[in-house]
Amino acid sequence: MSQPQIGVIGMAVMGKNLALNIESRGYTVAIYNRTGSKTEAVMQDHAEKKLVASYTIADFVKTLEKPRRIILMVKAGAGTDAVITELLPLLDKGDVLIDGGNTFFGDTIRRNKELDKSGINFIGMGVSGGELGALEGPSMMPGGQKEAYDLVAPILEQMSAKAEDGQPCVTYIGPNGAGHYVKMVHNGIEYGDMELIAESYNLLRNVVGLSVEEIAAVFQEWNHGELDSYLMQITADILTRKDDLETGKPIVDVILDAAGNKGTGKWSSQSALELGVPQSLITESVYARYISAMKDERVAASKILPAPTVAKFSGDQKAMIEKIRQALYFSKIMSYAQGFEQMRVASDHYDWSLNYGEIAKIWREGCIIRARFLQKITDAFNHKADLNNLLLDDYFLEITKNYQGAVRDVAALAIQQGVPAPGLTAAITYFDSYRSEVLPANLIQAQRDYFGAHTYERTDREGIFHYTWYKEQ
Amino acid sequence: MSQPQIGVIGMAVMGKNLALNIESRGYTVAIYNRTGSKTEAVMQDHAEKKLVASYTIADFVKTLEKPRRIILMVKAGAGTDAVITELLPLLDKGDVLIDGGNTFFGDTIRRNKELDKSGINFIGMGVSGGELGALEGPSMMPGGQKEAYDLVAPILEQMSAKAEDGQPCVTYIGPNGAGHYVKMVHNGIEYGDMELIAESYNLLRNVVGLSVEEIAAVFQEWNHGELDSYLMQITADILTRKDDLETGKPIVDVILDAAGNKGTGKWSSQSALELGVPQSLITESVYARYISAMKDERVAASKILPAPTVAKFSGDQKAMIEKIRQALYFSKIMSYAQGFEQMRVASDHYDWSLNYGEIAKIWREGCIIRARFLQKITDAFNHKADLNNLLLDDYFLEITKNYQGAVRDVAALAIQQGVPAPGLTAAITYFDSYRSEVLPANLIQAQRDYFGAHTYERTDREGIFHYTWYKEQ
Repeated sequence: MSQPQIGVIGMAVMGKNLALNIESRGYTVAIYNRTGSKTEAVMQDHAEKKLVASYTIADFVKTLEKPRRIILMVKAGAGTDAVITELLPLLDKGDVLIDGGNTFFGDTIRRNKELDKSGINFIGMGVSGGELGALEGPSMMPGGQKEAYDLVAPILEQMSAKAEDGQPCVTYIGPNGAGHYVKMVHNGIEYGDMELIAESYNLLRNVVGLSVEEIAAVFQEWNHGELDSYLMQITADILTRKDDLETGKPIVDVILDAAGNKGTGKWSSQSALELGVPQSLITESVYARYISAMKDERVAASKILPAPTVAKFSGDQKAMIEKIRQALYFSKIMSYAQGFEQMRVASDHYDWSLNYGEIAKIWREGCIIRARFLQKITDAFNHKADLNNLLLDDYFLEITKNYQGAVRDVAALAIQQGVPAPGLTAAITYFDSYRSEVLPANLIQAQRDYFGAHTYERTDREGIFHYTWYKEQ
Repeated sequence: MSQPQIGVIGMAVMGKNLALNIESRGYTVAIYNRTGSKTEAVMQDHAEKKLVASYTIADFVKTLEKPRRIILMVKAGAGTDAVITELLPLLDKGDVLIDGGNTFFGDTIRRNKELDKSGINFIGMGVSGGELGALEGPSMMPGGQKEAYDLVAPILEQMSAKAEDGQPCVTYIGPNGAGHYVKMVHNGIEYGDMELIAESYNLLRNVVGLSVEEIAAVFQEWNHGELDSYLMQITADILTRKDDLETGKPIVDVILDAAGNKGTGKWSSQSALELGVPQSLITESVYARYISAMKDERVAASKILPAPTVAKFSGDQKAMIEKIRQALYFSKIMSYAQGFEQMRVASDHYDWSLNYGEIAKIWREGCIIRARFLQKITDAFNHKADLNNLLLDDYFLEITKNYQGAVRDVAALAIQQGVPAPGLTAAITYFDSYRSEVLPANLIQAQRDYFGAHTYERTDREGIFHYTWYKEQ
């Protein structure tokens, strides 16, 4: 066994699977975990593998080839800082620390800056693909010093997922927090995709009147077209599954409708608010999870608050299923348009020079939002690198032309039927706002000037103006 | 002239007007401004008033009666910290500092804690009402040490606005950051109110086809009913005003439709995201301002992106105007329901013991969102202090029963006509989510368990479950 070329700290499932993944590419991997028993368990389960276990962090550092390459897979937050503090006196200039956790990008910017003073390279790397992705090939979004990335690029490229064209699903994202930022937006988009699929399911079931089995078949069919994606595929699969206990019901019908979250969607919306980006679809998806979690309140409210009094949908089922498919695809495009706009504004703000086409490219495989249509985003940015908004690209423009009627019908129907579709309605509302030459914000500016003397600009000349609304001014 | 009972630091318009307001109630007021010329100007303009000017901060502190009462009206942020640092060595235990700026509540919590170590009382006080309110009587939301509040309560009560029943629009809100938090939510609600009025205006103009003058008349009429409020009143007034330059157009038509913001709406949404509160209406209002500010992009997009192809609205104008009125009131209620829910969750989280009925009460006059219907909120909490959600109160429940049909029709029409109404649609979507016994979040939980082994709860028994979706698990 050669000297370990790389080490992994943290032997929870993600860290363990990443270590096994790297080992499977021909490397010797050092492993360490604060609680030694976890490390022992990994060594017992994988005795034949080129893994080198250490039981003190000092031993772990000593075993590594220089410059040292260390991946941290520990609980994001204080846990990461604690490990870095322990590591710092043991490291040499030029060593590379990689934080592969779901870390808030602001923390990564701070750590990169602090460690840079000691000459330690720090890469914040988003890793998507879940446990299985970590083992077999995730999509990875590393940000930090470019020269540090080059030191680990061969390993990352080998361990990553590969797209259909053979290209690795990893690329240098940008300096300091860029990688974790892009992963955060990825996760926000993931929230949006999941919400839109859930809303479509809800409409198919409670408006169109399909059974769970019928919806599974519809989703399987959709997955062979424009909507071809990992999330569509697993959702179709989920809907075919029966309860693993004795009820005999579809599993989805015994799962409590109270969605959890790990905070990355929330961060994404908070950052959009901070940067001034209208990122309504992801935000509504986060709020939809919050309101779902208020289960007891909803059950109580459902017995008190009035339902709409309109007649049940009785139109053409097949036509409505196709409209919902179009509405889903249209809304997904709005969500990605907002997400990419958020990255564009963040890139300017933090000076990251993000490459949007490359980002879409490394999401084509390995990650949770992997989907056929990501190639269309890459194509759009290849065609025009400084594209302001995805919607202005020919392909996406064409979709909006063909599908806007469907999304309007579906959103209006959902509202009339009392079936909440916050993602779909946010999508069409965003579209209509973005394509509005004039919005009623002129009235808002007048109000602000009236009560707060906040001034306004004019449509017909340059300058800052204030109107004498009342004498006291 | 007696020794000043209170002092004001910061002689920009808000500070000056607050000082004049206090002076008008019979007090002698010390004033100070970093740049002395501003203080001189105030003294010249108001030579007859009981104002005592100082030109060093040390002199200013010396002139004050003990325990000293000092209101800071300086630029929020670093400016506030700088003044506090200067003041600190000059103050004695038991003195009361009041920050009346639009300060982020987290900063207020920090400052209250830091100053408490030196025995200095620190009150973070939201002040609403604009310049005129500051002069004639604002609504004020003070948070900090209760015993400190008692030391300034008589002055605050005298200088505040008075409601119809004579009660002062100020009350002790709670410890540390509670006052600034409540002011932040007030401002978020203000964003929502303004957005909803702007959307109603837009629909009346671009769907119903009314002229600016006709809308002014409609709004004037609405202001005599349930929608009676300061914002409705000034909007009706705004729509009657002509350009003050030579165009002869309604002023609203020459104001650029790019809305600014001072950040309090954004903070409100960021906090809701942090606390897990579905506060969609305010958030959509913040995003609506952001998208309005992308004027050049919108103008370009308006020439490219497709408009809906449906026929223009040709129904009964009068009936539709009434529906829009009902939709506006319904949506306003959703916004307040969300805002009060946000305060409830924040109160639990930060341990503030907020009194929601009292908060609605002090918003009845003086502040920007003052409105007749706030009495209904006070009544609701008087009737049931631990009301979970405003919608469950009899009065508001009745409104939702009577108006839900209208808001569905208006939102659906807006979507079909391509007129963006993100506030109105967020309102009905929230309503439908909140009254949903079952939401499709069960599917989201299944997805999360599938790709990330995040586990789920079940509807039929206690516990945490994980499904074996595939063999590798």
